[in-house]
Amino acid sequence: MSQKQKYVYELPIKVRDYEVDVEGIVNNANYLHYLEHTRHEFCEQAGLSFRQMTREGLTPVVRHIDITYLSSLGLGDTMISRIALERDGARFIFIQDIYAADGIRPVVKARVTIVSIENGRLGRGDRIAKAFAAYIKPCDDE
Amino acid sequence: MSQKQKYVYELPIKVRDYEVDVEGIVNNANYLHYLEHTRHEFCEQAGLSFRQMTREGLTPVVRHIDITYLSSLGLGDTMISRIALERDGARFIFIQDIYAADGIRPVVKARVTIVSIENGRLGRGDRIAKAFAAYIKPCDDE
Amino acid sequence: MSQKQKYVYELPIKVRDYEVDVEGIVNNANYLHYLEHTRHEFCEQAGLSFRQMTREGLTPVVRHIDITYLSSLGLGDTMISRIALERDGARFIFIQDIYAADGIRPVVKARVTIVSIENGRLGRGDRIAKAFAAYIKPCDDE
Amino acid sequence: MSQKQKYVYELPIKVRDYEVDVEGIVNNANYLHYLEHTRHEFCEQAGLSFRQMTREGLTPVVRHIDITYLSSLGLGDTMISRIALERDGARFIFIQDIYAADGIRPVVKARVTIVSIENGRLGRGDRIAKAFAAYIKPCDDE
Repeated sequence: MSQKQKYVYELPIKVRDYEVDVEGIVNNANYLHYLEHTRHEFCEQAGLSFRQMTREGLTPVVRHIDITYLSSLGLGDTMISRIALERDGARFIFIQDIYAADGIRPVVKARVTIVSIENGRLGRGDRIAKAFAAYIKPCDDE
Repeated sequence: MSQKQKYVYELPIKVRDYEVDVEGIVNNANYLHYLEHTRHEFCEQAGLSFRQMTREGLTPVVRHIDITYLSSLGLGDTMISRIALERDGARFIFIQDIYAADGIRPVVKARVTIVSIENGRLGRGDRIAKAFAAYIKPCDDE
Repeated sequence: MSQKQKYVYELPIKVRDYEVDVEGIVNNANYLHYLEHTRHEFCEQAGLSFRQMTREGLTPVVRHIDITYLSSLGLGDTMISRIALERDGARFIFIQDIYAADGIRPVVKARVTIVSIENGRLGRGDRIAKAFAAYIKPCDDE
Repeated sequence: MSQKQKYVYELPIKVRDYEVDVEGIVNNANYLHYLEHTRHEFCEQAGLSFRQMTREGLTPVVRHIDITYLSSLGLGDTMISRIALERDGARFIFIQDIYAADGIRPVVKARVTIVSIENGRLGRGDRIAKAFAAYIKPCDDE
């Protein structure tokens, strides 16, 4: 992660006051909400909303999340939530980094692994890969 | 509400630290979660869980909530969440009062009005009334 | 509420997928989050953010909420969250109505009563009234 | 993680219906709430509640979470949330595994790394280590 990620999507999100806990910072679980919301907005923009996936019998499922908390956000803060996307066989890896409003100070760095359940079974993910073709960075290119 | 409610159910709930906001008190929206959780636990005990209702084509829907915040809860606190139940035609009124751990200091007093959607239309609520017959206080008895 | 409210603020909010429950609709408690977020954004725009209030020793506290659920929102929906504001002595009444994206279909109608705790005691609310003077509808004008 | 963890604490937690999303399963972010709630209950039992830490100028901060989702929970389910604890210098690693009600089927496996901020600076964690001495598994013992 030392080299610059080639982000394919970014979304500004403003902290809602109720997401800030008694210590004055956004509670760690809320970042998973921000990450999910960013993924879903990205998917919608890519032309494959979660509603559509469901209609096609596809269920994207979160298998693994690795998240590092680097700095914190508080009341009234806005963040920039960015996505880079990789495919590793049947697994899609969303590299999701959240920055402070300046776009520079890193707040959270995460890798979210998604698999596609197709009609009840682990799928090969080809339908999803097709929808995201323009955004996926080949793994051998890393 | 000056006279003592005839509560038919009570549930102790412990505050989870993430429910406490930056002012050191449980955020107002979380009380709706506590009230819903208490209703669902009560329904399950009464032999009519929400899963069963769904299977029977019944969807209980919240129509109205009137909630007064009287005192606050903070980190580590436990509450006693109590229910009294009335029926008014097709509407079920859950009188839901939350007390501090001593069972005496009132924290929240709420009236939650539920209607039953049966197969997509507003139902008369007879199936639900039957399940809750032992718990419902007749309205003319007030 | 039959006559048109004179709304003084409106905020579009998009439903986040995790706010939608198993029945496919936004869970009732999340509307309190939307209402709070709208109030805080409004306050910030009016020049009196919650952070500033805290610094001045003012703590706005929710005393009462009356909320009617008229229709529902689901995955991918956007709402328009509107505010009208009245003062009744020490109490500020936020009339908060949420509409569907068309701005016409009502989703939720709520009255949220806020009091101001000033240095630990119930305050007269004059500092808040001053900040909101341009937005408050006199009660005798109703 | 092939060998049996030596758990030092376990807490049964019942799923609340509002934690279940439109796909009928507990949303991934809620597991971070369960993990946090379990840690806090454990700390309280160990005699060092988060309120006490705060009073002593200690702020435990989540630095990193690695979480694998193995199976899902739905409406009405109860889970068993277990903790094993390791120390690695200034870092405390909470190994937190959630099982289904049978205590056997794994639902989530997580490693949560906590550091201690003491009076605004990264601390050595000795005060926390002392409180948890009876529970910490030496790292060289792995």
